Amino acid sequence: MKEEKVFNTLKENMRRPLLIVVSAPSGTGKTTLCRMLVERLENADFSVSVTSRDPRPGEVQGRDYLFVSEEEFREKIDSGGFLEWAVVHDRYYGTSKDFVRESLGRGNHVVFDIDVQGGMRIRENQPEAVLIFLLPPSMEELRRRLVGRNQDGEDEIEKRIGNSYREMRRALDYDYLVENRDLDEALEMILSIITAEKCRVR
Amino acid sequence: MKEEKVFNTLKENMRRPLLIVVSAPSGTGKTTLCRMLVERLENADFSVSVTSRDPRPGEVQGRDYLFVSEEEFREKIDSGGFLEWAVVHDRYYGTSKDFVRESLGRGNHVVFDIDVQGGMRIRENQPEAVLIFLLPPSMEELRRRLVGRNQDGEDEIEKRIGNSYREMRRALDYDYLVENRDLDEALEMILSIITAEKCRVR
Repeated sequence: MKEEKVFNTLKENMRRPLLIVVSAPSGTGKTTLCRMLVERLENADFSVSVTSRDPRPGEVQGRDYLFVSEEEFREKIDSGGFLEWAVVHDRYYGTSKDFVRESLGRGNHVVFDIDVQGGMRIRENQPEAVLIFLLPPSMEELRRRLVGRNQDGEDEIEKRIGNSYREMRRALDYDYLVENRDLDEALEMILSIITAEKCRVR
Repeated sequence: MKEEKVFNTLKENMRRPLLIVVSAPSGTGKTTLCRMLVERLENADFSVSVTSRDPRPGEVQGRDYLFVSEEEFREKIDSGGFLEWAVVHDRYYGTSKDFVRESLGRGNHVVFDIDVQGGMRIRENQPEAVLIFLLPPSMEELRRRLVGRNQDGEDEIEKRIGNSYREMRRALDYDYLVENRDLDEALEMILSIITAEKCRVR
């Protein structure tokens, strides 16, 4: 019965949890947006990355990152515990396989606040993932935001700006481009993308 | 400059008019939804099809259809004036090339209220078209609606029900499935799909 198959596809679409990857040059507001997104969605988990970098002021262990030593990180690599991992600004960052598996198992979407290297690896492993690239209004505005943030030293700022340009180079490999001129407006666009993806026939 | 290309893609995406095809078994409410959609979008035209069938009570020439004789329709076929045309319920239906060209030229989206044959032909000619298939809550509900509509004779109703099943067979060839349980809810889903399509990288 062909029409039963159609209705079943609709039902499965509606309840299937999504992997939602959000990348952006640092300073674009992606972490804030990802947090807002998880709060607005009824059933979604924020993917807490594992990292070997030091916590910044205000960052909380287990909420912002799972902070581990470089040694612990390398052990988890060796035991195949990462869905993806990468080195950014000379520090390790990775996504734990178990975390994602458990969220999906509960029927929850998983939101990834992740750089383009990580995004590309998630797509390789999970081709059904939805990749969203968040854009600043302009590169000048991004530079102003990074300099204004003032929580990093000058070298660190220059490193981040250089990295922003590198991240931008992969933007067109993503599924969607969303401009973050206004946080609420960008959030609504991402929510629309998620609604559309739930309707999509694959 | 790679980042300029990214910002240009974003800008082009945002202003590019879309071809939005909506198909559904008759009785699903697609014509009502298409009208609501055109009203809600700021810049959209309803694609007025050309047909050789007789107007139903309440249908207005030039608004609902361009009603023409079978002879006139055949002449327009011969002169290559249709983007797509087909025979449904023994009557001719078609989309005028000029109509679509003029709308896009004004930067307007074009909304097509069209059967699956027409939808598939539009995709062939315009691969960037967005194809949405609207579903009734169930086939039983659809039958109830068709019988309740009472504007057609019994033979006509049976013909339409048979045709509904044939339309359903192509639903999974569309880009999106949207259930029309509630008109406003279905409209919001279609608006989300349009927002998402404007963000999509092609």
